[in-house]
Amino acid sequence: MPLHVGRRLPPTAYACGMEQRVSLITLGVRDLARARAFYEALGWSTRAAREDDVVFFQAGGMVVALWDRARLAEDSGVEDSGGWGGATLAHNVREPAEVVAVTEEARAAGADIVREPAETFWGGYSAAFTDPDGHPWEVAHNPRWTIREDGSIELPE
Amino acid sequence: MPLHVGRRLPPTAYACGMEQRVSLITLGVRDLARARAFYEALGWSTRAAREDDVVFFQAGGMVVALWDRARLAEDSGVEDSGGWGGATLAHNVREPAEVVAVTEEARAAGADIVREPAETFWGGYSAAFTDPDGHPWEVAHNPRWTIREDGSIELPE
Repeated sequence: MPLHVGRRLPPTAYACGMEQRVSLITLGVRDLARARAFYEALGWSTRAAREDDVVFFQAGGMVVALWDRARLAEDSGVEDSGGWGGATLAHNVREPAEVVAVTEEARAAGADIVREPAETFWGGYSAAFTDPDGHPWEVAHNPRWTIREDGSIELPE
Repeated sequence: MPLHVGRRLPPTAYACGMEQRVSLITLGVRDLARARAFYEALGWSTRAAREDDVVFFQAGGMVVALWDRARLAEDSGVEDSGGWGGATLAHNVREPAEVVAVTEEARAAGADIVREPAETFWGGYSAAFTDPDGHPWEVAHNPRWTIREDGSIELPE
């Protein structure tokens, strides 16, 4: 049953601030099967059925989704400029050597390695790749950030 | 001291798969002070100093960063197409009425509300806004997803 058909809900009861968290990142894709195969080749798994038109990956305490780029643009109320639009994801690891390992896995999965593993200007060690739809990921070791056992990140005090 | 100057690290010791998580989302911005003020107006807080050229927000178990868009493009190894590039964030809430509340906060903070709160085709209730740099956020209630007390999301089995 649809929820709340035809009525606007009052804002008064919940005027308590936007919590400081992200629930979902949706990456717009041109070819869902290709994009799904890429992330699966990196070792990620999804419960999505083969025929689903959206693929959700549980990613720590949030979700990464793959969805048709044109539908995502429409749903997001934006015009698609067709390339990169100013958002980059990062996957942080616990050791510099893991940057190399993940980069090699991405290369083997068909990623374009746009920056080979190297020391960074901010004192870390990182690489960057783009997925089959051009979405960039940095793979980084930042010696100042704590990665908890569950993979979550804790900024320094 | 710089780490690992001039040497490539061997991938062999860590060939264990890319963990299924995101550590950081960096949003490229044209005016850092304006972007920072927008997220602070939504109630977010940062330990960044006023003069810092990057602003990190602890966002649940991950980090949201604001950084100069041209530098981010260079760092990410991509060409900037100047508009939206296929990535949308979402902030999920526990009740449909919270969608309205957060949307009103975003409007008050200067967001462009590109989709007013309404029932969605997927059976939820959501709205969408763009931040001052055009980055879209969906604010959503999805009755099928669990939001834990710490704000993390759990996909259904």
